[in-house]
Amino acid sequence: MNCFLPIAKESHFPIQNLPFGVFSRGNDKQRHVGVAISDMVLDLTLLERHGVLGITGRTADEMLFQQSSLNPFMAAGRPTWQSVRQRVTNLLADDEHGLRDKPIAEQVLVKQSGVSMHLPAEIGDYTDFYSSREHATNIGTMFRGKENALMPNWLHLPVGYHGRSSSIIVSGTPVRRPVGQVKPDDADPVVSPSRLLDIELEMGFFVGPGNRLGEPIGIEAADDHIFGMVLVNDWSARDIQKWEYVPLGPFLGKNFATTVSPWVVTLDALAPFRVDGPSQDPTPVDYLHSPGLRMYDIELGVDLRPAGNAHYETIIQSNSRHLYWDIRQQLAHHTVNGCNARPGDLMASGTISGPEPISFGSLLERTWRGTQPLQFTGGIERKFLADGDSVRLTGIARGDDYLVGFGEAEGTILPA
Amino acid sequence: MNCFLPIAKESHFPIQNLPFGVFSRGNDKQRHVGVAISDMVLDLTLLERHGVLGITGRTADEMLFQQSSLNPFMAAGRPTWQSVRQRVTNLLADDEHGLRDKPIAEQVLVKQSGVSMHLPAEIGDYTDFYSSREHATNIGTMFRGKENALMPNWLHLPVGYHGRSSSIIVSGTPVRRPVGQVKPDDADPVVSPSRLLDIELEMGFFVGPGNRLGEPIGIEAADDHIFGMVLVNDWSARDIQKWEYVPLGPFLGKNFATTVSPWVVTLDALAPFRVDGPSQDPTPVDYLHSPGLRMYDIELGVDLRPAGNAHYETIIQSNSRHLYWDIRQQLAHHTVNGCNARPGDLMASGTISGPEPISFGSLLERTWRGTQPLQFTGGIERKFLADGDSVRLTGIARGDDYLVGFGEAEGTILPA
Repeated sequence: MNCFLPIAKESHFPIQNLPFGVFSRGNDKQRHVGVAISDMVLDLTLLERHGVLGITGRTADEMLFQQSSLNPFMAAGRPTWQSVRQRVTNLLADDEHGLRDKPIAEQVLVKQSGVSMHLPAEIGDYTDFYSSREHATNIGTMFRGKENALMPNWLHLPVGYHGRSSSIIVSGTPVRRPVGQVKPDDADPVVSPSRLLDIELEMGFFVGPGNRLGEPIGIEAADDHIFGMVLVNDWSARDIQKWEYVPLGPFLGKNFATTVSPWVVTLDALAPFRVDGPSQDPTPVDYLHSPGLRMYDIELGVDLRPAGNAHYETIIQSNSRHLYWDIRQQLAHHTVNGCNARPGDLMASGTISGPEPISFGSLLERTWRGTQPLQFTGGIERKFLADGDSVRLTGIARGDDYLVGFGEAEGTILPA
Repeated sequence: MNCFLPIAKESHFPIQNLPFGVFSRGNDKQRHVGVAISDMVLDLTLLERHGVLGITGRTADEMLFQQSSLNPFMAAGRPTWQSVRQRVTNLLADDEHGLRDKPIAEQVLVKQSGVSMHLPAEIGDYTDFYSSREHATNIGTMFRGKENALMPNWLHLPVGYHGRSSSIIVSGTPVRRPVGQVKPDDADPVVSPSRLLDIELEMGFFVGPGNRLGEPIGIEAADDHIFGMVLVNDWSARDIQKWEYVPLGPFLGKNFATTVSPWVVTLDALAPFRVDGPSQDPTPVDYLHSPGLRMYDIELGVDLRPAGNAHYETIIQSNSRHLYWDIRQQLAHHTVNGCNARPGDLMASGTISGPEPISFGSLLERTWRGTQPLQFTGGIERKFLADGDSVRLTGIARGDDYLVGFGEAEGTILPA
């Protein structure tokens, strides 16, 4: 299917992608739902209002795109997601049945450069997993030695914890360096701006219909409850984290900011990029049995632009297929006890690290606790982030002659 | 100030209390905001709609009570909370200026026995602290021995973690026994209904206006950001928790259900019950310096009715003044790194245990890991909760000739 808009070969948003997001035009405060196509946004809120969207099986008063967030659409479920995807595909097709040459196209197609992006959903709860074996092993090795790197539970269940939803921000929002208690060796704790400010390269998924309290989502049904995926930077203050996290886990070391990319790429767009995951030994218990192509081949990158430098330089190259626990397993595990997931909930992977140092997904690992600083143009070194540094995460799945891209999740560090 | 309604001496809801909640009548789905008074509810949603509430400093179109939750009111801030409290007091006063003998009283005063209570707020984020020294010491002693009971950070900051907001339920909602992975000694993990289902006696507060991301709430301003308090039962599956919680903290062992009492008692109602807290040594760092009467003298109780028994029997008697870290310290700590708290967020104390066994706030402590079962009428024993057991938390502050009560937080265990 060709699109009537020109689409550059390297565009993240060809007609095969069609990710959903929430945007506003210029200084308008109204938030609309849109689909990214090439360098444009297709305005679904307006299309629906004008009765042009016409989704199979829904009446005119069951509006999906009038609430400034994707939550109603996420709640509607996979058949509706697929109907809308098909309808949008038809509207963008290079034939006389779609928007091509229609007067309304001027209204409903706007340049991405002229819009502001917002959080795609009202996120009720945010959960962060810890699903990369290499990451857990790296961290474990640093803190407990190679022999005891993985905790006894790690290979049996996708370890996770609850994060903070209030401080999830959309790409482009600056991040203020957090202040907090840190504990110098052999001295009393002091209050200080974090000196070990880090990033974590993650991906996250948004929950679709979700489940009622007390009614788990079986792993065979999990895909129908996953709307789509985004890039996630789980900014981390390692010094604050180190002092606070025993025994109840990370808290202020994490909850000052979590950046997500604005465009949610659906599982339907990602279907061609399903790949095998690593074999799991020991075999997980039944409710975690995830057969078939359980991972996604998504190339991930992290670029850093040191304060004062003009250009980003790539510091991490990884792939989401490195994960040990997949998104179905995460959702099935999260709900096996009856915990309810709601439309718009965000569940992130945890730091994604691969086997090689270039693929380690945090500065903590990438510089091995700061012992191997990264080098940048102009003789600049970084162990952790300095004020004014900018970081962006990118993700792309490569088709034969197209990309399915995630855009970026970017943030710049403000001084404390 | 006398109320024109008869108020029993032991009522939790005299005119000195005036807690806020969300209710619906009979089978009506409409949720209204109300104030508990004696055995009645005063309907603020109707009063506001009829223009009878007239709050100082607000125009008619700034409605506070039309949104099925207390969030708009919580966001409005202390001066508005106090205006409404004063206005409600006047409406209920035993004189000709209030509702006494007015026709509208029939509409806006309804029996509590005829209404259903709902969650008082849409809770964006839920945080649980760990602020009882006795509780942390008990747990530490069981797991690490008496010498290493408290972690090194515990006396320096109020340890806390993020909980799950989706599974917070209002008193009276049954709790399904969770299923999950548990690890028998010397055997592979298995999937099983929890066999160590426990309660945790806690109190929680709802956040008022809150703060913007990056702008901490100083401890001197904390009270103005705390709307009021409720009872919290942080149900816990100890066997699931034990296997999963290292290193990222409690997750499925907690997030299947958290019960709150429906009536939010304001800090203004609790002001007469402020008391000294325990002295803090070492002195906390500046941002945690909490002078004056920093605790509340609230008698707490837990009653258990074993399945098949007719009556509740008291198993725990405690007091919120036993806490080491107070609510100002909790909020100041939570936001010191810039983390934003939003209206309706819930922050709970963690299990409140006192020095004596009768005041230990969980079955884990109360039965000392099940080694000292509790005895009930009919020869019934309990180490942990059985299916069909009911548990209720209660809280009261005692005035000279009145109580300021919290009602109850009740739940019954359903089989897995």
